[in-house]
Amino acid sequence: MAKESTSSELRHDWLSDRWVIIAPQRGERPDDFSGFRPSFSSDRRQCPFCMGNEVATPSPVAEYAHVHLSGFTGNNWQVRVVPNKFPAVNGIESLGWENAVADPIVGATNVHGTDRLTSTSTAPASDRIDLFAKCLATGVHEVIIESPEHDMHFTQLAPSDAQLVFQAYRDRLRFWSDCRELEYAVLFKNAGYEAGASLIHPHSQLIATSSLPTDMLRVFQRMQLYYRQAGKCIYCQMLNCESDDASRVVWRSRNFIAFCPFASRFPSQVTIVPVQHQSSFELIDDESLGELASGMQKIVGAVQQTFPDAAYSYIIHTAPRIMRFSVEFHWRIDVFPRLVKVAGFEWGSDCYINPLAPELAAKQLREKIE
Amino acid sequence: MAKESTSSELRHDWLSDRWVIIAPQRGERPDDFSGFRPSFSSDRRQCPFCMGNEVATPSPVAEYAHVHLSGFTGNNWQVRVVPNKFPAVNGIESLGWENAVADPIVGATNVHGTDRLTSTSTAPASDRIDLFAKCLATGVHEVIIESPEHDMHFTQLAPSDAQLVFQAYRDRLRFWSDCRELEYAVLFKNAGYEAGASLIHPHSQLIATSSLPTDMLRVFQRMQLYYRQAGKCIYCQMLNCESDDASRVVWRSRNFIAFCPFASRFPSQVTIVPVQHQSSFELIDDESLGELASGMQKIVGAVQQTFPDAAYSYIIHTAPRIMRFSVEFHWRIDVFPRLVKVAGFEWGSDCYINPLAPELAAKQLREKIE
Repeated sequence: MAKESTSSELRHDWLSDRWVIIAPQRGERPDDFSGFRPSFSSDRRQCPFCMGNEVATPSPVAEYAHVHLSGFTGNNWQVRVVPNKFPAVNGIESLGWENAVADPIVGATNVHGTDRLTSTSTAPASDRIDLFAKCLATGVHEVIIESPEHDMHFTQLAPSDAQLVFQAYRDRLRFWSDCRELEYAVLFKNAGYEAGASLIHPHSQLIATSSLPTDMLRVFQRMQLYYRQAGKCIYCQMLNCESDDASRVVWRSRNFIAFCPFASRFPSQVTIVPVQHQSSFELIDDESLGELASGMQKIVGAVQQTFPDAAYSYIIHTAPRIMRFSVEFHWRIDVFPRLVKVAGFEWGSDCYINPLAPELAAKQLREKIE
Repeated sequence: MAKESTSSELRHDWLSDRWVIIAPQRGERPDDFSGFRPSFSSDRRQCPFCMGNEVATPSPVAEYAHVHLSGFTGNNWQVRVVPNKFPAVNGIESLGWENAVADPIVGATNVHGTDRLTSTSTAPASDRIDLFAKCLATGVHEVIIESPEHDMHFTQLAPSDAQLVFQAYRDRLRFWSDCRELEYAVLFKNAGYEAGASLIHPHSQLIATSSLPTDMLRVFQRMQLYYRQAGKCIYCQMLNCESDDASRVVWRSRNFIAFCPFASRFPSQVTIVPVQHQSSFELIDDESLGELASGMQKIVGAVQQTFPDAAYSYIIHTAPRIMRFSVEFHWRIDVFPRLVKVAGFEWGSDCYINPLAPELAAKQLREKIE
C-alpha cells in the first residue's frame, strides 16, 4: 500500500482502450498557483436565468412547478428549459423538423410538441480520404435552468426540487429521442469557472446532434465486442466486480451504485450506474429518479466537501439512437471535480495523468457520505 | 463569408478521425467570467529553476551556455535540463537502464551518457478482455529550464538563446531515442496557469514512455493508411494544400510553414511543419533549428499579442520508435492558447466545440506577424 502510493501505474480503460497514468507523487509537487480557486459574483439583475428576467431567454420549451401548488401561473416555475440563445449547433429546422414550442405546464408534467418527422438521419462518412471534409453541424442545444434562484446550488435544493431537475433531464432526452434526425445526445452540467461554465446561475445543458461522434462510435463498438466475447454487458460486469471489491465504491442504494472507475482519467471521478441493466436514461421511472437525484446530491456534496469551491462537471451518457434498447449499452453518469489541468502531455499523447488513486478518492468521498 | 461566421460547421480531422464543431456564434455568449485572466507572481528566492537555486533540483543531465563565453564555469548556464523531481512515470532504472548523468558542458554541445542497453521494449497488450489491467508506468520525465531568469518569457529571449532552447529539445529527444526501452516521447511546454503549468519560471518538459499510448497507435495507423491510399505522407499533402490555399497560413520561411489546421480543436491552434519530409524532430540540423526557433518566437508572440496574458501550450510531435525514419510520419509542432475550457460536452462526446474559425484565427495571427 505504501509502495503503491509512490509508484506510477498504467491502468487500462478497456472500454475506450486507453491507458491512464496514476501518478500519486505528482500531487506533491510545488505549485505557484496552489490554493487558487477563482470565485465570482455576478449581478442577478442582469442574469438571464433568474426569475423575473425570463424575457432575456428564448421562449421555454418546458417548465416545471411544484405539484402541490394550485396550478401553474406562468411565474412560479421551479425548473425551466429554454433553447440555448448561442447554440453550438444549427437548429434542425433545416432538416424539416420544427423545434419544440413552449407549452404551459400544469404540475410537474412536461407537455411536448407532438409533431414528429421521420426523415432519415445524416451521418457523414469518415473513411474516404478527404482532408477537408465538412458539413453543417445540426442538432439541438437546450439549457435546463435548475432553480429560479441565482445562487441556489444543486446540493442545496429540496429533494423534490432536485428530482424535478432530473425529471427535466429525462423528459427532454425522451422528447428528443423521438426525433429521428438526432443520432446522439449528451446531457451535462458544468458548474464553476474551471468546469467551463459561462454563467453562474445553476443550469445544465442538452446537446443532441444529427451525427454520431466518431470516438463514441468506437466506444460503442467496444461495448458490442465485450458483449460478444463475455456474453454480458460491460457495465453489468463492472458493477458486479466493483460491488464485490468495494474499495472503489462511493455510494449505493437499492437501484444504483456509484464508484471511482479503476482507470479514472481525473482525480475523484465518480461513475453512477443503475444496478439493473438499462440502456437509456430516458427509461428511468419516477421512483428511481428520486433515488438517483438524492444520490447525486450526496455525491456532489461529498465532492464539494472534499474539495471546497472546486468546479465540477457531470455528464449523463445515454444510449445513442443506434443502441437504444440494446443489451450492450448501459447508461451512466460521470461526475468529476475539475482539480487538474489537461496539459501538453495529455494533448500530445491522449494519455491522462491522474495524481489521485481511485481507491483513495473513493475512500475520501465515502467518508463524507457516511 | 458572413453566413459562415454565424453557422456551425462540422469539420473532419481525417488523421484522428474526429469531427470538430466550429461554432462562431458561441463566442458571442454572455460570460460571468469574461476578461478573467489569473495573473500571479512568485518568489524567485524560492524558485527551484532560478540561477542560484540549483541545489533545489536533481543534478542536471545537460546544461547549455553561450559558445562565445570563454568556457563553461558551471554557473553561467543559459539552458538547464534536470530530471523532474516529481515525475509522472517511474524511472527506467527498473528496466536496467541507468539514467543520464550530468556532464560538464563546453559551449553549446550536449554530452550524453554513452551506455545504451538493448533489451526489448514492453508494450502491454490491450485487446484481451481484462477490465482491471495495470502495470508499472516507466519512462523518463525531464524539465528543460529555458533561462536562468525567473520572468524571462520565451518570446523575449535573444534569438541565439531561443535556439539553445530548441537545441536542448532536439538533443534530449535524440538522446532518449537511443534508449530501446522507450517507445514514445512528447516534448511540451505549458505556460501559464490555464495551460497547466505549476511553476511560473519558463520551462518545458519531456516525457518518454516505455509503451505507446493506444490513441497514438491509432493515429499512426491512419498515417500508414493515408500513405497506402494516397501514395504520399499526409502532412506533405496537407502542407501543399495549405500553401496553395493560403487562407489558413500564419507564417512561412524557407524550411517551414505554419497554419491553423482545418479542423482545429482549439481556437487559434497553429501547426508548424518542415516543408521537406522529415520523420523525427531529432533529425533537424542546426541551421533549421535557428529558423524554427525564430519562427516559434514570432508565432507565440503573435498569439500573445492577439490574446494578451493568455496561457498557452505547445507540443512537439516526433516519430515514435516504430515510425522512426518512416515515409509516413512527418514531425510537427502544435501551438495553442488556452482560451476556452474543455467541458461537459467534450468529455461526453470527444467532439470539440471551437468558437473561432481557423481562417479567421490565421488572419488575426498573420496580421500580427507581418
